[in-house]
Amino acid sequence: MTQAPAKPHRVVIVGAGFGGLEAAFGLAGAPVEITLIDRRNHHLFQPLLYQVATASLATSEIAWPIRYLLRDRPEVTTLFANVCGVDAAAKCVQLDDGGSIPYDTLVLATGARHAYFGHDEWEPFAPGLKTLEDATTLRRRILVAFERAERETDPDKRAALLTFVIIGAGPTGVEMAGTIADLAKDTLPQDFRHIDTRKARVVLIEAGSRVLAGFPDDLSAYAQASLEKLGVEVMLGEPVTECSADGVVFGGKRLEARTIVWAAGVRASRAAEWLNAPADRAHRLQVEPDLTVPGHPDVFAIGDTVTIKGPDGNPVPGIAPAAKQEGRYVAALIKARLDGKTLPPFRYKHAGSLAQIGKKKAVIDFGWLKLRGSLAWWIWGLAHIYFLIGVRHRIAVAMNWLWIHTRDQRAARLITQGSSKVAQ
Amino acid sequence: MTQAPAKPHRVVIVGAGFGGLEAAFGLAGAPVEITLIDRRNHHLFQPLLYQVATASLATSEIAWPIRYLLRDRPEVTTLFANVCGVDAAAKCVQLDDGGSIPYDTLVLATGARHAYFGHDEWEPFAPGLKTLEDATTLRRRILVAFERAERETDPDKRAALLTFVIIGAGPTGVEMAGTIADLAKDTLPQDFRHIDTRKARVVLIEAGSRVLAGFPDDLSAYAQASLEKLGVEVMLGEPVTECSADGVVFGGKRLEARTIVWAAGVRASRAAEWLNAPADRAHRLQVEPDLTVPGHPDVFAIGDTVTIKGPDGNPVPGIAPAAKQEGRYVAALIKARLDGKTLPPFRYKHAGSLAQIGKKKAVIDFGWLKLRGSLAWWIWGLAHIYFLIGVRHRIAVAMNWLWIHTRDQRAARLITQGSSKVAQ
Repeated sequence: MTQAPAKPHRVVIVGAGFGGLEAAFGLAGAPVEITLIDRRNHHLFQPLLYQVATASLATSEIAWPIRYLLRDRPEVTTLFANVCGVDAAAKCVQLDDGGSIPYDTLVLATGARHAYFGHDEWEPFAPGLKTLEDATTLRRRILVAFERAERETDPDKRAALLTFVIIGAGPTGVEMAGTIADLAKDTLPQDFRHIDTRKARVVLIEAGSRVLAGFPDDLSAYAQASLEKLGVEVMLGEPVTECSADGVVFGGKRLEARTIVWAAGVRASRAAEWLNAPADRAHRLQVEPDLTVPGHPDVFAIGDTVTIKGPDGNPVPGIAPAAKQEGRYVAALIKARLDGKTLPPFRYKHAGSLAQIGKKKAVIDFGWLKLRGSLAWWIWGLAHIYFLIGVRHRIAVAMNWLWIHTRDQRAARLITQGSSKVAQ
Repeated sequence: MTQAPAKPHRVVIVGAGFGGLEAAFGLAGAPVEITLIDRRNHHLFQPLLYQVATASLATSEIAWPIRYLLRDRPEVTTLFANVCGVDAAAKCVQLDDGGSIPYDTLVLATGARHAYFGHDEWEPFAPGLKTLEDATTLRRRILVAFERAERETDPDKRAALLTFVIIGAGPTGVEMAGTIADLAKDTLPQDFRHIDTRKARVVLIEAGSRVLAGFPDDLSAYAQASLEKLGVEVMLGEPVTECSADGVVFGGKRLEARTIVWAAGVRASRAAEWLNAPADRAHRLQVEPDLTVPGHPDVFAIGDTVTIKGPDGNPVPGIAPAAKQEGRYVAALIKARLDGKTLPPFRYKHAGSLAQIGKKKAVIDFGWLKLRGSLAWWIWGLAHIYFLIGVRHRIAVAMNWLWIHTRDQRAARLITQGSSKVAQ
């Protein structure tokens, strides 16, 4: 009598962002069966999403079908499905179509959405930027505002149409503000007959005391000065108290604006609720030093959906390299456990912080080295191209950037999802 | 006392497709003021729209902002607006926002939409292909069908999800059928675990007696044989009598299919209604030999929204080169009239007919020369790249085709406008 072969260990990964995908990559060669579940069919390179929103890149240049990325891994099954809960007792993940997927080890990499600090009613007026649809929606709003301004004869209404407010001066807010300013100053002027797009106002509003709060003071100051040189009005220390179809109120002042971009905050996914586990105010799971959920040694949580302290005592930032390191660690720990071993706690290594400011400058903080200006921009550009997946995407993005830099032209200035009748 | 300078002649062009844009280009240097109105902000290269629908190209690779194309022409004003009528007595075009644009000469280049021959209720089940949104909608339906099939356990339902019906075997239908077959046979097989995408059925249904009825018999026969070699089932002489969420009925037979593409017919825009002018059954304006609308010598109509006979007595086909020739003729005639001259009637020159069949073959009919196979495919590809506007678009499309041909990978396999919860 032969013995039945041991059933392979079942790993379920929820979310194919940077963290989830890296966990799947890291488990290559391990004696596991992986199910990777995402409610999108594509992995998204979120650090460049603002470039889709500002017509610089096409959607397909920063997204890849998830199953394509794992086509050479027969032990990985990709599911296009919506997870709505976890039954930790029965060890299975619940899908909203009634399905349930059993696991031996679960990895939650479910990310975050933008959040309005208790003002969800602001969302229709101040959309955020997390998905490809968010980006094409913002692109439409920005481009339609210029189109409507071109036909508007009332000077006040025209001014409101040509006022672009960005709320939140972290990297996304700074990058959006700089790129909208470039669009108005360099790309569009020659195309319009009745408006001077160079007179568009780009207003960056931040509740804190400086832009790019995660960077050293001198880089923040440089970023602010560079933005102001591009014509961006930077308003610090004044939180927004109202968003509506007419504009925003901040620091008691009313600003008429038809286009508002929300870049001020995020809230983690519902993973903490699924497990009834402790979370912070932004719904981020508080995880153990080995990234397991307290009380659930078989459930890992990584990326934007968790909060954990780095070796310097500061929280690990919600950026792609952190999520990837966590995914890699979890894959290694799962492999070690299958060998009956364990690993020391997760230790975050901060490689650096980068932000682009307009089309020709950037700031970089490597810790041991601070860079700013056009050299920083080159490093920023090469780093982002390097981290794109595949030769074709790299060529396509590099080509678009070449055109933007040499000719100020942006390929993706398309108003889609509606005709001229579309409401903003 | 000096004399006031003569007011420039006002030309209003409605529609920035191939015809309208060519009319605007052709009027360069003429003493006119041009207003170009379109309800989209972009000119679309419709001959390659099926490649967006089948994930081969990105939307921004076949579309250009209209005002960008006319940025160097200060006498041209581009309006992003919706025309809802023409007041021929007052000589002005009416916009749906209440605006009105006066003209001395009007050029109607308002194109066509797909039509359902009195069965408009079929549209939700069998969408057509005329706009970028149509293309991304079809792309989503096709990709979601494979995703749902991967998770479907009922064999009949799975078979219906893996059945793709294309109604109409003109160039668009033939090109859609061939490309969906390529997608299923070459691009997707390695990505799925529970289905064999190579077993997907692609069924091309045509009411007439052959595919590509506009081509000579031998090229039609070749196209049909090539499609069948790709695995496409070609059904001739059997009109569709029903489209529903479950599938189609044709020739009395019912075929269960979750994805249906409508490529069977078009109907012209409302231009004939606006002018209360004679039109054929497909709403196409019957124009004079100089492309003016009968009774309206100052109103031209061109492109898919008109019907006119060519020198061989056959109707001028609804293809891009015909619309461009008409646009060029109208521009020349407007210029001649401003000089107090006139021109002989419009004379269509048929340069040739082309259609791609799958990713490696095409048929071409130049009249004096008929080509088929891979040489025809190369000419087809070079001709399409040549007619794209701008170096960047040409490089981008060529690069995508290179990847499809050498690696069978398609860049734009994105399901957007909805998450996994989206209904088909």
